[in-house]
Amino acid sequence: MKKLNTSPISGMQELLPREQAAFDRYKNEIQEVFRQHGFLNIETPTIERAEILFAKAGGETEKQIYRVVKTEEASEGADEALRFDHTVPLARYVVEHENDLTFPFKVTQGGRNFRGERAQRGRFREFYQFDIDVIGREKLAAAYDAEVILTLSEAYDRLGLSGKLIRVSNRKILTGLLEELNLQEVAGEVFRVIDRAEKVTPEKTREALEKLEIGTEKIETVLAFIEIAGARTAVMKRLREFGFGNEKFLEGVAELEEVLEILETQGIAEAVQADMKIVRGLDYYTGTVFETILPEHREVGSIGGGGRYENLVGLYSDRVMPGVGGSIGLTRLFFVMRELGMIKEQSEAPVELAIVPCSEAENEFCFQLAKKLRADGSNVDLVLSEKKLGDKLKYAATVAKAGIVIGENEVRGGEILVKDFTTGEKRPL
Amino acid sequence: MKKLNTSPISGMQELLPREQAAFDRYKNEIQEVFRQHGFLNIETPTIERAEILFAKAGGETEKQIYRVVKTEEASEGADEALRFDHTVPLARYVVEHENDLTFPFKVTQGGRNFRGERAQRGRFREFYQFDIDVIGREKLAAAYDAEVILTLSEAYDRLGLSGKLIRVSNRKILTGLLEELNLQEVAGEVFRVIDRAEKVTPEKTREALEKLEIGTEKIETVLAFIEIAGARTAVMKRLREFGFGNEKFLEGVAELEEVLEILETQGIAEAVQADMKIVRGLDYYTGTVFETILPEHREVGSIGGGGRYENLVGLYSDRVMPGVGGSIGLTRLFFVMRELGMIKEQSEAPVELAIVPCSEAENEFCFQLAKKLRADGSNVDLVLSEKKLGDKLKYAATVAKAGIVIGENEVRGGEILVKDFTTGEKRPL
Repeated sequence: MKKLNTSPISGMQELLPREQAAFDRYKNEIQEVFRQHGFLNIETPTIERAEILFAKAGGETEKQIYRVVKTEEASEGADEALRFDHTVPLARYVVEHENDLTFPFKVTQGGRNFRGERAQRGRFREFYQFDIDVIGREKLAAAYDAEVILTLSEAYDRLGLSGKLIRVSNRKILTGLLEELNLQEVAGEVFRVIDRAEKVTPEKTREALEKLEIGTEKIETVLAFIEIAGARTAVMKRLREFGFGNEKFLEGVAELEEVLEILETQGIAEAVQADMKIVRGLDYYTGTVFETILPEHREVGSIGGGGRYENLVGLYSDRVMPGVGGSIGLTRLFFVMRELGMIKEQSEAPVELAIVPCSEAENEFCFQLAKKLRADGSNVDLVLSEKKLGDKLKYAATVAKAGIVIGENEVRGGEILVKDFTTGEKRPL
Repeated sequence: MKKLNTSPISGMQELLPREQAAFDRYKNEIQEVFRQHGFLNIETPTIERAEILFAKAGGETEKQIYRVVKTEEASEGADEALRFDHTVPLARYVVEHENDLTFPFKVTQGGRNFRGERAQRGRFREFYQFDIDVIGREKLAAAYDAEVILTLSEAYDRLGLSGKLIRVSNRKILTGLLEELNLQEVAGEVFRVIDRAEKVTPEKTREALEKLEIGTEKIETVLAFIEIAGARTAVMKRLREFGFGNEKFLEGVAELEEVLEILETQGIAEAVQADMKIVRGLDYYTGTVFETILPEHREVGSIGGGGRYENLVGLYSDRVMPGVGGSIGLTRLFFVMRELGMIKEQSEAPVELAIVPCSEAENEFCFQLAKKLRADGSNVDLVLSEKKLGDKLKYAATVAKAGIVIGENEVRGGEILVKDFTTGEKRPL
């Protein structure tokens, strides 16, 4: 009988050991790709001063921040909260440690972030994010935008998501368009409508634009514009056909072309598409923006994204530090992959080899044998339960891929056999 | 100029990238040893229902629990808090998922826990702990106590702490002694005095016992008893000389002997000592107890410990599940090792190789080269800054162990040279 409710609280991922093994493998793959690309790992605390988090949060996010209060000193007034992403703590870190860092600072962070979202299937209040960022001082070459996208692309491939599509745009293009149309004053609203365009019907998008009272002609231009998507050359041709002389627009087009060209030469052209619908609306991006989807499962939406920001640290320092970064939200991605049946490892026994002593008399020998096999890198369980041999073997076959039984004969130097629990075959150790 | 206070809040570890690389290596070493010993990794949420945590906390710990409150719905009344250790969430996990687990359940957890301690140098409010536990149903062989200690011992060795000393006792021995002395009623107080004995002078310990008004003779017996420490045979001889017929006492002595014998046969006798001063007072242990110290640095105190508990899940279920576990508090250990100058990696450049294009014209070639070298497992940075070659080389020499410069000649097929930044030597790629 349970005395207390022992389920994890809603919105928290809690996995069984075999699922966890798959999740851990994914974590490792992502981190290994990031490491190979020369990103340096850092960790910032889970708890930050609330003023640091609120300075950047705004809107929905602000309402979702978890504050923390010490039980003993609830009245002491330290205003602290749980981080909701890695970017805000990174900005603080970069300002705090600027003199000890080398720029461009190629940095990665992986860990749990927290948002008090409404409980909903597939929505997580605690979730793993794996971020990469390149932070410059004053300037940062556009080629780094491509390097970030390439790195994330490779990480997705390692997770078995080679069918993914990375959709890329540049905020300056849309900003330039709105300048051309003299719509600067409603730019925020238009961005928001475009950001939602994929989640609603085309009629809804048109209605939302009509509410802004910008006139039919401009509405048609915006609607036509956001339909532009495809391979580099085709998209570049269409963008240039607008004939805009707007500086922002041309800058955005040139940057987008540079990024796409690098991605092409690196052989991931078929996984990349320019797409004017991508704005990543509520974030602080100012140049390149991108997000990744699974084209065969568009219903799950974005499985990660990122972009370039003119200045990471404006709220914390007078310095100007441009950056480009991206993130993989692994908790949500893992949930999606499980739903889609894309995770195979769950059926595998987690331990390579179980050593089963027939009785306690063989314990010492088994400890020695385990030590030897572990020293060779194997993952070995030692079944020390004081149970019947049959029960011990049953346990071994559940946790391990193969097993060894050690009795008097083996201790005296008899041949040791390894039984493969899947095939039933035996082979000498 | 800084606009906000950008230091991490007190009691939080925040490392520079090179220190972080050392910390990460330690994390990996510990987790790899645990994996090789067949412990299955799980993760429980950082946030738990407060009632789950408070059911087990008690005393000092209870006052240190961080509660979390959603900004938006502070009044909604969900009473949630941050976990302060891994054992309480593990108890909940085992009850919740009992039917999906195989017992004995060999489990490991690694991650951040939280205690709102008073800020103090070397005390952390957020800290990494790496735990292993073996949980049985109804029964659990004493040999698992030895397996847990062996596993932790190996983890310490991998961290370069081969000079450590693991001090082992068994709570039943001291409990038996107090029964013999008819001191059951003050057992809790005596345990607490013994637990503090090493942090205060012998006079203070005597005074603390005198306050319990148990009579001089019993005080002398307790004081003499807790001085018993040393190798297995010597300690066993002294314990048996007391001639106690007390069942608990004899059970404790027998269990301690069995555990020490296994550790001896596994060749770690010189790193292990029986020591009657070890009680791990405030915890819920009932049998074997142990803690690890650095004998050359006794002033830093325990760097980890653990023990056996008769029932892990008593507060959450009517089931009886005995367990044995131990933990390495890596944040504190890392702090101590830095203080003692035991961490070497900090001086090493974190990236293996930096590729430096002379100009943007070589970017494409460099991206290709990086891809090839990364595919071989190397950790390669690509220096894409639009700076002078000299500045790019300076950056490369800071972040990487070696570097390659790519100019027109190399792109046209000329020999590519790798420069070792430490020795200054060049070799062909």
